[in-house]
Amino acid sequence: MAAFARNHAEAGRRVVLITSGGTKVPLESRTVRFLDNFSSGRRGAASAEYFIDSGYAVIFLHRHRSLYPYSRMFLTINMLDALQFRGEEGASSNTGEVVVNQQVLPNIAKVLKRYREVKDGELLLPIEFSTLSEYLHLLKAAAQALSTIGSKAMFYLAAAVSDFYIPASEMPEHKIQSSNGPLQLSMKMVPKMLSPLVKEWAPQAFVTSFKLETDATILLDKARRALDTYRHQAVVANVLDSRRGYVVVVTPETQAELILTDEDVKNEVEIEERIVKSIEIQSSKNINETSNVLS
Amino acid sequence: MAAFARNHAEAGRRVVLITSGGTKVPLESRTVRFLDNFSSGRRGAASAEYFIDSGYAVIFLHRHRSLYPYSRMFLTINMLDALQFRGEEGASSNTGEVVVNQQVLPNIAKVLKRYREVKDGELLLPIEFSTLSEYLHLLKAAAQALSTIGSKAMFYLAAAVSDFYIPASEMPEHKIQSSNGPLQLSMKMVPKMLSPLVKEWAPQAFVTSFKLETDATILLDKARRALDTYRHQAVVANVLDSRRGYVVVVTPETQAELILTDEDVKNEVEIEERIVKSIEIQSSKNINETSNVLS
Repeated sequence: MAAFARNHAEAGRRVVLITSGGTKVPLESRTVRFLDNFSSGRRGAASAEYFIDSGYAVIFLHRHRSLYPYSRMFLTINMLDALQFRGEEGASSNTGEVVVNQQVLPNIAKVLKRYREVKDGELLLPIEFSTLSEYLHLLKAAAQALSTIGSKAMFYLAAAVSDFYIPASEMPEHKIQSSNGPLQLSMKMVPKMLSPLVKEWAPQAFVTSFKLETDATILLDKARRALDTYRHQAVVANVLDSRRGYVVVVTPETQAELILTDEDVKNEVEIEERIVKSIEIQSSKNINETSNVLS
Repeated sequence: MAAFARNHAEAGRRVVLITSGGTKVPLESRTVRFLDNFSSGRRGAASAEYFIDSGYAVIFLHRHRSLYPYSRMFLTINMLDALQFRGEEGASSNTGEVVVNQQVLPNIAKVLKRYREVKDGELLLPIEFSTLSEYLHLLKAAAQALSTIGSKAMFYLAAAVSDFYIPASEMPEHKIQSSNGPLQLSMKMVPKMLSPLVKEWAPQAFVTSFKLETDATILLDKARRALDTYRHQAVVANVLDSRRGYVVVVTPETQAELILTDEDVKNEVEIEERIVKSIEIQSSKNINETSNVLS
């Protein structure tokens, strides 16, 4: 991660660490049962694409098998329904070429081309986690790797991280037996990583966290409180039911509502494009202000 | 489901209901957090293919986005790495045909052909669930639909179903707030569906349940106890770490170890092929015995 960051920074690129997907919190050390957080990884994967389009290099720290940039287009289809034998009638199927039916996947050529450009340009570094503790370790390592490039680093913490866990010392080794009767779980609080991230690990970076609530009435208050507590740069606040069409980007001084209109939806505009643009503008302001202070 | 079962039974086919994947147990009614069970759905998806190869029609009751018959082959790759533009050098990429690189997916033509045969033959009826309660409702509906075809029905319960849940009446509406401190969860026992399934819903069907443990020393005892308690026909017993290479098929009278050798693994034999064969033999025996009793 450090080499990736350094190389891109030297080439004049900014580097963003995107976290994406939910975290798995085991209830047993040989894990059969676990606590999880709702997240397909869609927001992180889409945002990665828009950051790359804006000239960033991306470290994509994502939950194993959550959505992935570019290939996320395959999520809603069975791939076998999108394939056909070339010249179906003629050749024997067993030896024939298999081609993508572009009526089923109309964007495939464009997406494949872009995926390859990004791969050839080494603009995307994928890193996987499954459990909460893997996530926490990797986030710390990433933060320290990115601290070497100072204000050229950005954190975009879109992963849905559990607030609760069971310490290894309190976890049973084996599968919890249902014959023992109802289950009482006592879960500890997960330490907030935002605090050391902002203060110690990468103090010059621009940090964006995400706040997902189901209750819209407490959302903005919680976003403001997070900024006050952790002293980072931005919170993207959203409500579960409307998260794909409405978010508020909150910074210590500003508050911007981003809304997809019906027209946007028809044109397949994704709200992540707007979020990334908004965050980019905020971070450029910050870099300019820092330069002004220093000059 | 009833029409599917009836049509296939009339055509002389047996019908198996396969359940597959883990169940989601919400902790909030507007769900952000949930309890889950380890299961990719691999065993259920693979078994579905082998049942179809053995002449069965399959109702595939599976967790949303768990592995699916035939398309499960795409699991371990990024599909974009398996695609290329036809005649790469020549044509313009944007208009070009996109073909599957059969060096990356050597079995694609064979699998696609088989997938289409199965689809054209309407041999596979997919039904999705996400939460535990969806699963329970659908299982009951499926059992009642299958009861109309009597001993031509089979149940192959490979899903990893939660033993614990939180009743709707005890669930908070909104996302649990971490500011409230550590989390105490009190979970009730999920009623065992095997009991009414065997006794009431589909008393003539051949029922196979699965028993996954992490502790090998209690496995067979638990399998036998399940047969004693629920009076069904077979338990496939397996241990988490060795589940892909070793299972024991336990019936009231027999106990058969199925083991993949190194040679089998090299030849890409899957243990599900052996499990399905073993269950099929047992169920044929049962049908014959029933016929003998009746004649």
